[in-house]
Formats: sequence, C-alpha cells, structure tokens
Amino acid sequence: MKRTIFAAVCAASFAALAHAEDAPKLPDAKASDPKTLGLMQGSPPAPDKIVRFENSYRFPATRWSFSHMRELTPTANVWRGEAQAHALKRAIRPDLERVAFKTTNGVDMTFGDLFDKTYADGLIVLHKGRIVYERYGGALTPERPHMAMSVTKSFVGLLAAMAVAAGKLDDKALVVKYLPELKDTAYGDATVRDVMDMTVGVKYSENYADPNAEIWSYARAGGMIAAPADYKGARNFYDYLKTLQKEGEHDKAFAYKTVNAETLAWILKRATGKSLSDLLSTEIWRKLGAENDAYFLVDSTGVEAGGGGLNMALRDMARFGEMIRNGGSFNGQQIVPRAVVDDLFKGADKAKFAKAGFATLPGWSYHNMWWVSHNDHGAIAARGIHGQVIYIDPAAKMVIARFGSHPIAANGFNDPISLPAYAAMANALK
Amino acid sequence: MKRTIFAAVCAASFAALAHAEDAPKLPDAKASDPKTLGLMQGSPPAPDKIVRFENSYRFPATRWSFSHMRELTPTANVWRGEAQAHALKRAIRPDLERVAFKTTNGVDMTFGDLFDKTYADGLIVLHKGRIVYERYGGALTPERPHMAMSVTKSFVGLLAAMAVAAGKLDDKALVVKYLPELKDTAYGDATVRDVMDMTVGVKYSENYADPNAEIWSYARAGGMIAAPADYKGARNFYDYLKTLQKEGEHDKAFAYKTVNAETLAWILKRATGKSLSDLLSTEIWRKLGAENDAYFLVDSTGVEAGGGGLNMALRDMARFGEMIRNGGSFNGQQIVPRAVVDDLFKGADKAKFAKAGFATLPGWSYHNMWWVSHNDHGAIAARGIHGQVIYIDPAAKMVIARFGSHPIAANGFNDPISLPAYAAMANALK
Repeated sequence: MKRTIFAAVCAASFAALAHAEDAPKLPDAKASDPKTLGLMQGSPPAPDKIVRFENSYRFPATRWSFSHMRELTPTANVWRGEAQAHALKRAIRPDLERVAFKTTNGVDMTFGDLFDKTYADGLIVLHKGRIVYERYGGALTPERPHMAMSVTKSFVGLLAAMAVAAGKLDDKALVVKYLPELKDTAYGDATVRDVMDMTVGVKYSENYADPNAEIWSYARAGGMIAAPADYKGARNFYDYLKTLQKEGEHDKAFAYKTVNAETLAWILKRATGKSLSDLLSTEIWRKLGAENDAYFLVDSTGVEAGGGGLNMALRDMARFGEMIRNGGSFNGQQIVPRAVVDDLFKGADKAKFAKAGFATLPGWSYHNMWWVSHNDHGAIAARGIHGQVIYIDPAAKMVIARFGSHPIAANGFNDPISLPAYAAMANALK
Repeated sequence: MKRTIFAAVCAASFAALAHAEDAPKLPDAKASDPKTLGLMQGSPPAPDKIVRFENSYRFPATRWSFSHMRELTPTANVWRGEAQAHALKRAIRPDLERVAFKTTNGVDMTFGDLFDKTYADGLIVLHKGRIVYERYGGALTPERPHMAMSVTKSFVGLLAAMAVAAGKLDDKALVVKYLPELKDTAYGDATVRDVMDMTVGVKYSENYADPNAEIWSYARAGGMIAAPADYKGARNFYDYLKTLQKEGEHDKAFAYKTVNAETLAWILKRATGKSLSDLLSTEIWRKLGAENDAYFLVDSTGVEAGGGGLNMALRDMARFGEMIRNGGSFNGQQIVPRAVVDDLFKGADKAKFAKAGFATLPGWSYHNMWWVSHNDHGAIAARGIHGQVIYIDPAAKMVIARFGSHPIAANGFNDPISLPAYAAMANALK
C-alpha cells in the first residue's frame, strides 16, 4: 500500500499526543504554503511540484489538494439551483484578531494566531448571521470547494433525521429492513438508531497509525486512496460494507467508525430513492441560497463517499451552520424541521460517549452524527480530520466554519488551540 | 488496449459510410435510453448496469456517461461567477416540430424527427436570442453539463484569437517562441497560425477505425481512456505532444488533428499565465451570465483536455453561441472583441480545407478552430464527435446548440440529417 498523509501524519499525531515534547518537526503554515512551495505553479509545474492523485494525501501536497479534490478524482455535483445566492451580510470587525485566549496547554494566543497555528485554509465567523471575520490562505479562495472530511457525516446524519421526521425512514427498525444484503454482517442485528449514533459493535478500527486498520481497507475500496497493483479486495464502498463482522454489542458505547456513516448513506438512498448528491441538493443546498455547487467524491461505481467525501465552499458551509443555529430556518424558509434541529442540540448519552476516550472532548456526546458539547453555551459541532469544522454556539449567536490542511489528521491535536479560541470568540461576541 | 466506444463505433462509422446499406444494427434512441436500459438505476444498480470509467466510452453506456463525465474522471471547474444568471427569454413555438426537410439521402423528415434520429441528448434553437425550441432526452437535464467533445476546440481557438487581439499572443510567431520544448517535434518550425488553422504537417492519424492510430496514444496519455497494465507511454498530454514528428509541410492543407488544439491550449497557458479553466472563466463564462459552472476533463497532472474535454450545460452553450452571433456582445457587455468574431466568420482557405476530404462539408473552411460554411447564410459551427454542435446562422438570426450520444462518432454520419434540418429551421425562422 502506498503511504498516504493519513498514515504518515496520523502516526505522527499519535506520537505527538503521547509525547508532545517530541512533536515531529514539520514546516509551519507559511513554509508549507502551496504558493511558497510552488506546488502546481507553471505550465507544466516542475516534476516534483506536481500533485497527482497518488501523492495527493501526503503533507504538504495536502495543502493544495484539499482545495482541488475534483481535479484528482471523480466527483458528483450537488447543484445549488438556479436562484440568486443568499447574500450574507458583512460586518467585519478587525478587532477580533486580538481576542485573547490561553490554549489547553497554557500558551497565550490571540484569535489572529489561530489561522496559521492550525494550518487553516479558510475561516469564517458569523455573529447573528453576519460575517464578522473572514480569511483565506493556502490554496483556498472563496468560490473553491474544500474537502470537508467527516463534516460530511453530519450532513448525512441530518438528512437521515429529516427522513425519520418525514416518515420515510424508521430509526427503530433493523438496518436489514433497508439493506437485506447486510444480514450476515455486524449490521445484521443493529438498528438504524445504532448506526445514526455510532453505537454499533463492529470489528473495524479507525486507528490511522496502524497500517492494518480497517480504515485503510475502507478507503482503498472506495477509491479514496490508491490500491496496489495486486489488490484483490472490494472495489466499492458497498462491497466493503458487506465484509464487516460483529465485535462486542450494539448500543453499549459510542465508537467513532466511518463505516457507520457510509452505511447510513446507503440506508438513506434506499429509503428515499435518491442519490446522496440529489438528496442534499433538493433538501438543503437549493434552499440555502448556496453561492456555489458542492460535490462528493465518488467510488468506482459512482457511489458518493458519505463518510467523508463532501466538498463545499466556505461561505456555503457557514450558511449551512447558520441555518442550524436558526433552528432550521434560513433564506426565508424552514429548510429543516425545527424539531429535528432541536433534537440535534439535545445530544445523546454522555456515558456511552465517554467510553470512546476522546481526551479533548470531556462530557460531550454524539447524536445523528453531530458532536454535542453539552457546555453552558449549548454548542454543537460537525468535525473532520485535518481541521475541518462547523462550530455552532447558540448562546453567543455564533457560527464558525473552518477548513484546514493540518499535517496531523486527528483533531485531538487542534482542539487544545481551537476549542479555547472558539470559546474566547463566543465570549467576545456574546 | 481496452476497446472503447471510440474504437468500436468509429469502426462501425467508417463501415457505415462506406456501405450505408450494411449499417450495423444498433438499438435506436428509445431502445438505448439509459432509463429504459436501467443504467445506473438503483442503489446499487445491477452489476451489468453500472457504468464505470473503463466501460464508459462504449455505446450504449455513452448515453449515460456523456452527461456524467465528472463522476467517472477528474475535472477542473470553470466558475460561473457569483452574479445572477442571464435570463434567456422563452418564446416556444410547438409548430417548429413540424418543419419539414429532406435528408441528403432523400428521406423526408420533420425537425421533430431529428432528436431521436441523431440520438440527441439535448437540443435548443434560439431565434433572435429567444428559446423557440428546447428538448432534453437520455440522461441529460437542463442543469447538467454534457461532454462537448471537439466543440472544446472552438473555445480554445476563440480564446487564442482573443489573446492575439490583446497583444498577448503572436500568431505569426513560431510555436517554439512559447514552447521551446517542442523544438525537435513537428511543431519546431510551425507557426502559431498553422496550429490555429490546423495546417500543421504532423505524423498523427485521427482515424478512429485504426487501433494503431495516434489518436489512441493521445487519449491514453491524457487519461481519457484506460491504459493497459503494461503501458509504458506518456502519462500526460504534454509528454505526448513532445513525441510528435513532422510529416509533409506546414501551411499546405487543412488536416483535422486534435493534437493541434492541445498544443494551442498549452501555448495559451504559457502566453497568458492562466490555466485553461481560469482563462475561460474570467474571459467568457463569468461575463456570459452562465447558469451553471462548466468543467474540463484533466489529465493525471491536472492539465485540461483542450482538444475535447469541455463539459457545459446546454443553455449555457446556447448563450455562448448567441454571444458569437451578436458579434461578441451579450448580457450587457462586449465579451469578445467584435473584430475577433468578424474574423471567425471570414473563415480560411477553402482550397486547403478541401484537401482534407470532408464529404459532407463541401466549400467549407476551418479557422481559429471553427468550421465555416461559406454558405449564403454565412453559417459557422463548432463541432464535436457523437453529435455535439453549436450552429450559428447569422442570416436567420438563429443559434442551434445540440448535445448527443450517437453510437457513431463521426459527424459525417449525422450531417446528412442534421445539416438539412438546420437549413430548414433557418428558412422557417428567417
């Protein structure tokens, strides 16, 4: 198997978390800026400056590729519709750069430091629906979709919750009601609810540091990373899901496993009769007044990567977050039923969540594929590796949308900086 | 080499042209409709109904794939900008279905027959800028970009002519002024003008019926068709162009060779410092009020396929044609200089064109990668295999935009029906 950024940096990540003082020396945000490096500059670029699919997941190539995924791999469009885009009001506050906070590790920083410290490619703060802070870097521009990684899951979870509310999907039913082909897998006796809250007992490891972890089999099957010439395994997501076996019991503990999101996306397609891209377009994207089309990475059979393949422009991700903050109402219409959004904020069982051992997220829960803080601001988040986030703080009427290409995948590395930064911003705006 | 639709149907095409009475029995438009066939229906589709990159160029898979290219291969976006789309006025005339004509082969038909007879996926007729006829079929919908094949070349030729007019490109200069790396190739002593009018003497065959023709090497290098496991040749367009050797003399005869368009696209990128997708977006697409983003297929190094890789929505292609009909003015602005458009209509040397032996196009010429009829209506066209066309008839104030997935690549098979149909429509509207 080709080494990828996932393997390379997640190994680094685990090491860094265990021994912060031995953190690997990596070029900082300025040194790894794709323009500084000359990545994909010129016609053609120098041979060692060309980002190809095969090397696209390796840092620092990721600093370019996460803003150019469709140029590297097949994708399905999420159409914005034909209406004029919703106009996001602007009320930029330069003073917000100076909002001060202390990292979890005790370092003094300002909000202005956050961008480069976390290798951000784009960062927007909305307050009461107005853009108060907006910045782009790396290879990102306002109109360019960026890889949202597992933020994708929160879109899939929301669409599933909407289908439940509409009576098209029964979350108490067994998965096999919709996907009988999963009868002899871990999902054979799991409920749709187990899948939506990721409490499925399935033998599958998301440990990026282990080259034999199932996350690699999943990604290879879906064409997200290159497969070796002699590869004999599954060649699409669905064939891979059919191989998963049970381990442990369902409904006992939260266990973050991307295959659950992929299974939920499949259930959703069976239940609604629509592809994931059509569903997102018709239910949300066209109503949101999105400025730009979004897109999903697809596997070799055209199936969208529901676990981590959504790409969208930053302002559109911010609009989506603002819609959630507004109880599902945005751009002059109720896009998501209020009760569905209210239920997201309620979260799920904190005791089950605690068993997963996310050190940077004490007291949180995971519900409908959203991360629920249960903090005194009632914040929730959609989170993806390498620093993708939608952070919604109802008390502060604040939404933060952030894309990044941090060399280390796990957000456990970002959180000690970014979570205190978000909290400080919320307090400054409140 | 895997057999592709190009090879399969073009063999059929040549056979059909030579022995029309022995034309191969192929399913007609209704029988090959992707919905009728169940192509890509269901989640997942039945195994034999899945269109993958490897089989996507084989008829009838092409009836689906030409409307879904980005789901099969990497692409670069051509951004429409953030403005509201230009509103095309509608004045639909149902009577136009009954416009009668006689095919070149003497068969009586109506305009309503044209769609299915030529396996059209979409067809728009504009009269004085208003939509008087609009129809979609197969896998195409109004918002979905369709493969434009060699219509792409006319965009590249126009952008090059605009660069000449702007003083950024010298069409009298040698190609090597811009691309010194082509010194030892057929292009070593050719001028930019030779490339723009395709009068380059280069050993390269576009004969689809010959599996050893260079068109296959070109397409394999650019990743447009699958390469065999033991493939040792060029892996991108530019490396392939560097292998082309001279044959015959320049500036003596028109010879339709896709590599010229690819070379011109490269020259253009050197001369302007922009990628082809950025150039098309900034110079034309954003100004046109396009409804949808367009896109280019790209090779493994991210280089856009300037010879045939542009995909766009049908109405946007119609808007583009209307802009040309209006002397470069559209959507409230002069997008292309009037002199550049006027020069397109003048065409090039008919005697040089005649040497290429296009039986269905007597008296035509080829200039700046546009097909110029020199007929009494002064019509010009952008043309791509399998039935893609923009046909502009100034006398009738008419623009026809058409996408298709005809099983036979060569337009020599469509022309006996479609050219009389366009002429009859022009007379009906005039």
